[in-house]
Amino acid sequence: MLALTILGNNSAIPAFDRNPTAQILQTFDTSYLIDCGEGTQMQMAKYKIRRSKITHVFISHLHGDHYFGLIGLLNSLSLLGRTQDLHIHAPAPLQNIINMQLQVVHGELSFKIYFHDLTKEGLIVDDKRVTVHCFYVQHKIECWGFLFREKKHPRKVDAEKARAYEIPASFYEKLQEGEDYTNKKGTIIPNGEVTVAAIPAKSYAYCADTKYDETIIEKIKGVDLLYHETTYLKNLEKIAGERFHSTTTQAAAIAKKSGAKRLLIGHFSSKYETLEEFHAEASEIFENTELAIQGVCYRI
Amino acid sequence: MLALTILGNNSAIPAFDRNPTAQILQTFDTSYLIDCGEGTQMQMAKYKIRRSKITHVFISHLHGDHYFGLIGLLNSLSLLGRTQDLHIHAPAPLQNIINMQLQVVHGELSFKIYFHDLTKEGLIVDDKRVTVHCFYVQHKIECWGFLFREKKHPRKVDAEKARAYEIPASFYEKLQEGEDYTNKKGTIIPNGEVTVAAIPAKSYAYCADTKYDETIIEKIKGVDLLYHETTYLKNLEKIAGERFHSTTTQAAAIAKKSGAKRLLIGHFSSKYETLEEFHAEASEIFENTELAIQGVCYRI
Repeated sequence: MLALTILGNNSAIPAFDRNPTAQILQTFDTSYLIDCGEGTQMQMAKYKIRRSKITHVFISHLHGDHYFGLIGLLNSLSLLGRTQDLHIHAPAPLQNIINMQLQVVHGELSFKIYFHDLTKEGLIVDDKRVTVHCFYVQHKIECWGFLFREKKHPRKVDAEKARAYEIPASFYEKLQEGEDYTNKKGTIIPNGEVTVAAIPAKSYAYCADTKYDETIIEKIKGVDLLYHETTYLKNLEKIAGERFHSTTTQAAAIAKKSGAKRLLIGHFSSKYETLEEFHAEASEIFENTELAIQGVCYRI
Repeated sequence: MLALTILGNNSAIPAFDRNPTAQILQTFDTSYLIDCGEGTQMQMAKYKIRRSKITHVFISHLHGDHYFGLIGLLNSLSLLGRTQDLHIHAPAPLQNIINMQLQVVHGELSFKIYFHDLTKEGLIVDDKRVTVHCFYVQHKIECWGFLFREKKHPRKVDAEKARAYEIPASFYEKLQEGEDYTNKKGTIIPNGEVTVAAIPAKSYAYCADTKYDETIIEKIKGVDLLYHETTYLKNLEKIAGERFHSTTTQAAAIAKKSGAKRLLIGHFSSKYETLEEFHAEASEIFENTELAIQGVCYRI
């Protein structure tokens, strides 16, 4: 199971109590922080996000509204005595920016940071339960999207039935993987007799700041939840293109063409006080659209 | 008239909806920003502070809770199209930290920043209505306090009376400065006959993060409002000293010994959820003590 909590849903200038971009993707035992605009650590406190669970941070690009909150978060984690390693995946210059600020105070953090520069599309994290791939998106400066895929869940063994068929516990791992069992007499016990189907592995694609770009479609095909930026309503398509951002209808078109199951839209321009029209415009093209609202947890 | 609005009153780790340090000192026609912890621009929006009025920023030291919000503020000011110069007074390394983050986006700000490195005690700003002096305080790293003094206000000319005495308008400026007028017949019109006393010029001293340090006293003698940090309650005096911070009773002692008229205490440690005890302990020694509360404007 994946669960996504929105910590910031606004574009560059914070407005109407909407913070710059940050999201937390929680899996069973770990959390991934996706972008980290100013005030992210306060938003985490507000929405009771456990900072200690974060193992990886993904920064899509180095416009300030996507990373200015990172140094403050790192500082606080250190003051709180974190010892666990932290992995930061980001465009290369971030490492110098962070290190320069740490050097000024002649202090070391209480934990070790591993910087992983984003350099080419492909697999960047291969965790126990999740893989993460990065892919290019088209923005004014180097910018990356991220695709999170749960690994296939193990089938659930019905221990009572397995015992009845005299299947040894040492074979349970293979049962979880879907294998049939052949007993001493040569009788085949079909896997389905003693296991229950796993819940399907889920996926989440984060398309950070980007203009409308159909090359994304192949990369996020069939994703369970697609986050696509919608800085503007559809009447501002020209401005959106010039600024390397997208509109509601463009985000919805990408969702439709990629066969996404659900669409989440965010990164709203500060010019909009209310968001109803964003929802109306996008869901006209792609029905299963939701607004990214701060503090809301979207289960995938 | 000076008016101080508190935007953040907490120490290093934001907690209990208390933000890291930032204050706005407003004069008649301009505003000074004193320290700029993470989230300052959001606090300004929340408390309806006009960002465009800020002409000078003063950063006491380069612990993150005193400056991590600056880059985000600069970024937003530029997105909002500011053209007016901005002066930043801070320890020297700040300039590189800011510039490095601006370079990454290959962009220039819409306005010009003048960095003024703090290098020695003394006058750093001489505005039309206010002077600002900086002075050393004792913290773990290079750290500065700031003393804001209004210039003497002009006396108020009673134009009706002045006309009755046939004083030419060209002499009004001298009347404002307190001079008597001698008419053509050689009669002296005492200044007090045609002017009203000016409201007294006020002063504000900001003693940023500091351990108890009596050398401050001479520098802030007789100030109208003294802000002194109180990270801890009095029972933690030992810890306070080790960490180059102060307690309630220490701040109150400085206020008393310097002849300050009022004391404002802040920079509360994240370990304290409520602040009543801070007030109780400090006001026992220095009666005219107030807590620095976010969003509250203290008129000086």
